Amino acid sequence: MELTIETITKLTGGKMLQTGSSTTFQGVASLDEAQKTDISFLGNEKYYNDYLATEAGIVLVPPIVDTYPEGVGIVEVENPSLAFGEVMKKLAADSRPFTAGIHPSAIIAEDVTLDPSKVSIKAGVIIESGAFIGDHTEIGPGAVIGENVKIGDACLIYANVTIRENCQLGNRVILQPGCVIGADGYGYEFVDGKHLKIDQVGIVTIADDVEIGANSTIDRARFGKTSIGEGTKIDNLVQIAHNVKIGKHCLVVAQTGIAGSAEFGDYVTCAAQSGIAGHLKVGDKATLMGRTGVMKSLDGDQVYWGLPARPAKEEQKKQAALSRLPSLIKEVKSIRQKLDKID
Amino acid sequence: MELTIETITKLTGGKMLQTGSSTTFQGVASLDEAQKTDISFLGNEKYYNDYLATEAGIVLVPPIVDTYPEGVGIVEVENPSLAFGEVMKKLAADSRPFTAGIHPSAIIAEDVTLDPSKVSIKAGVIIESGAFIGDHTEIGPGAVIGENVKIGDACLIYANVTIRENCQLGNRVILQPGCVIGADGYGYEFVDGKHLKIDQVGIVTIADDVEIGANSTIDRARFGKTSIGEGTKIDNLVQIAHNVKIGKHCLVVAQTGIAGSAEFGDYVTCAAQSGIAGHLKVGDKATLMGRTGVMKSLDGDQVYWGLPARPAKEEQKKQAALSRLPSLIKEVKSIRQKLDKID
Amino acid sequence: MELTIETITKLTGGKMLQTGSSTTFQGVASLDEAQKTDISFLGNEKYYNDYLATEAGIVLVPPIVDTYPEGVGIVEVENPSLAFGEVMKKLAADSRPFTAGIHPSAIIAEDVTLDPSKVSIKAGVIIESGAFIGDHTEIGPGAVIGENVKIGDACLIYANVTIRENCQLGNRVILQPGCVIGADGYGYEFVDGKHLKIDQVGIVTIADDVEIGANSTIDRARFGKTSIGEGTKIDNLVQIAHNVKIGKHCLVVAQTGIAGSAEFGDYVTCAAQSGIAGHLKVGDKATLMGRTGVMKSLDGDQVYWGLPARPAKEEQKKQAALSRLPSLIKEVKSIRQKLDKID
Repeated sequence: MELTIETITKLTGGKMLQTGSSTTFQGVASLDEAQKTDISFLGNEKYYNDYLATEAGIVLVPPIVDTYPEGVGIVEVENPSLAFGEVMKKLAADSRPFTAGIHPSAIIAEDVTLDPSKVSIKAGVIIESGAFIGDHTEIGPGAVIGENVKIGDACLIYANVTIRENCQLGNRVILQPGCVIGADGYGYEFVDGKHLKIDQVGIVTIADDVEIGANSTIDRARFGKTSIGEGTKIDNLVQIAHNVKIGKHCLVVAQTGIAGSAEFGDYVTCAAQSGIAGHLKVGDKATLMGRTGVMKSLDGDQVYWGLPARPAKEEQKKQAALSRLPSLIKEVKSIRQKLDKID
Repeated sequence: MELTIETITKLTGGKMLQTGSSTTFQGVASLDEAQKTDISFLGNEKYYNDYLATEAGIVLVPPIVDTYPEGVGIVEVENPSLAFGEVMKKLAADSRPFTAGIHPSAIIAEDVTLDPSKVSIKAGVIIESGAFIGDHTEIGPGAVIGENVKIGDACLIYANVTIRENCQLGNRVILQPGCVIGADGYGYEFVDGKHLKIDQVGIVTIADDVEIGANSTIDRARFGKTSIGEGTKIDNLVQIAHNVKIGKHCLVVAQTGIAGSAEFGDYVTCAAQSGIAGHLKVGDKATLMGRTGVMKSLDGDQVYWGLPARPAKEEQKKQAALSRLPSLIKEVKSIRQKLDKID
Repeated sequence: MELTIETITKLTGGKMLQTGSSTTFQGVASLDEAQKTDISFLGNEKYYNDYLATEAGIVLVPPIVDTYPEGVGIVEVENPSLAFGEVMKKLAADSRPFTAGIHPSAIIAEDVTLDPSKVSIKAGVIIESGAFIGDHTEIGPGAVIGENVKIGDACLIYANVTIRENCQLGNRVILQPGCVIGADGYGYEFVDGKHLKIDQVGIVTIADDVEIGANSTIDRARFGKTSIGEGTKIDNLVQIAHNVKIGKHCLVVAQTGIAGSAEFGDYVTCAAQSGIAGHLKVGDKATLMGRTGVMKSLDGDQVYWGLPARPAKEEQKKQAALSRLPSLIKEVKSIRQKLDKID
């Protein structure tokens, strides 16, 4: 899908101030990463220098701006970030056209609730008894939807996904291929030399606008639910254990693992390969840098790093001190010798 | 499934000493984690304080105990841990009723050995030539069972699992969705600037009562077998390489990786995100704390932590010393200055 | 498949100098790891001591060698490493005989390009519109091949693999079960308190002779392509993000994660559980030891370790210094006391 500056102006209700050197646009990007076929926006004055140097094809700007970089298309709008969201939705909606229909090879239990004229069920899909599929939802080839699973509207479930019994998805949820929702949590009691399995009878609930990456696993709760909050985006190969609660609009990057009953507030960012121990809390807007290992609860609104996690600045100091350790050992030896001489 | 105190008393052959404030019970838990609908047990005097403070609905106690916390149902039994095991089996058996039958969409090669009246084969299952499926085993939707695979009795193979050719499972094995048993081990010879693949002609053997988590991968041996011992429980997204031997009743928590030909004794506990290098041994009852990296063989009966792994107490001392490093650097600087003055 | 010394001599165009104690051979291994049914080779004089002590069944040797260990079959060839490659190819070709045919349960869109007499499509495979499948390629049960995917000749796609739309594979590519090629990259713009999805409209290209492990995930590019170079071998549970470029003949071991737009040169070796941050470069023939965390670009031809990555020898010194830290703290305390006394 390609947009012209005219389409973008109309879509955003804006005013075209300058045409640039590109004529069609197909992507979106931040000002510093945008290329000439990308649309970007100036949402905050702190990015003004990025704006002046941008290579974007089009930038959406607020009325206050009166300098326009050469060769860049400029569209003035009241609220650039909102307008930019409209552009993104437009591009996304058209990138993967939805076509209703049920492939004849799909195996759908008799009592499944869905409107055949409004869902898209691909080849080899299996939907078990009691499930509910919302309108405009697409289920990809080979996906397995367990008993009594509820999937909202406009979801996109890719190939070979597994959703086990009773789990619940909101609207506009995207599950990338191979991810597993609702496997049993890892729970055993040690009795007479054996690990006896503790039934995992809870579910997973996934709120609106969540995306979950390829081959990630989200375990069902022992009782109650494991829950992923609205707008949270989870990357590939992430493990989320039973009874975890993730807040709204969090980012959980690849290969992170979150142990049982841990809780994230809203807007937590968790970079790749991090690990969070069980039964603790990470506050709103906390940021974990890559491979952080969280061993006790953390306040929000701070950046953390290291194993065990500490404020990133402290960890960076520790790292710097560490690199001076070999020379410190020599210095102490030299001091000792001098002292012995004095003595 | 819900049990009453009467059912539990009968099931355990015990004596009801006190009814509690709850009337039905559906879960099991340790004394300190139990809630009012849970059944727990006092198996060891060291948990006596937990017993006095428990919020469990019912506790199974030994005859020696004569104090009964208010509001908690008390059932006296000869051996609480054994009796507790009986309760767990009862709850587990009823949580997922087994219904024999083969879905018409399943594709089963002609020479597969199974008793259609005693197995449960779900929609879209594929079972290749020469396989054997034991009685009371359930195979979930979309699972693929390779040539000559042998699966014992009462196993539970979830959706979209892959078991490649010739691998062997004991009885009561549980494979969570998406796990892969018997992929090729990672083995190449470097010849004239290219990595040439070394055939991986061995198998994987999985003993009785093993459980393997969602999207975990257990590679087949180069020759011989990769083996997982009786009662071992493996969590999600775990990687077990070719020719690894895991002993009995081990716990291997999420996102751990075990490299080729490593060996675990029995009752090893390996917390999440650990890594074990190839060709080394971890002794019986060793415990690896989270994200431990094992680079040489470790004796059993100890707790380890860190990269490289060392006894946990040493690692904790190292961590404590590390946090004092920045002030140590200042102290040495101050000493040097004083010394120079004296000098 | 088993070979005799006569077959091996004929296959390599060599000269049989000594028959050993074994009569049939089925595997290949390096001199120090080979067992009596293995074939090995002496390709470099630095392995001469391994040669003298080898337990291999047969060794391919160059004409210059005139000592033959007792009990080992010896075949003289002009170029042992090349000849060894021939043996490996022979063993590999025979280990998994290719049988053309399309299982009737496979669902193949009408406009897919393939020669039914030259491909092997197993049960439950789904191939979507516009795909191309090369000759002598096998696609395993339950695999899903997306729209317009192009797969070259002699590839081996195992069970339950997912390849999403438009991705391209060269010849002789092996994909182990459950791996996912072409899931969406992890990209969002933060607009008005929400993470809006950035369309990922690029593809993944996988060159000739690449192998990818079970349940690994390789994301499609935002624009353009994520690319894996010729002969590169990727282990299980590896995450490769959007727009990553991996060079030729690299090794990427299990549970490693490579973030967006990172680039590897050729012959990079990356041991297990490593992590590479986005937008940086790792030079040709660099080696990353286990669990290395790369936070800035690295030159080639060096060995690295640690988080953040530094030359392995420096990291080892740091580790050694660290283990002396507790005693260093005591020493400084003792120096201070002495100094105070002097003072």
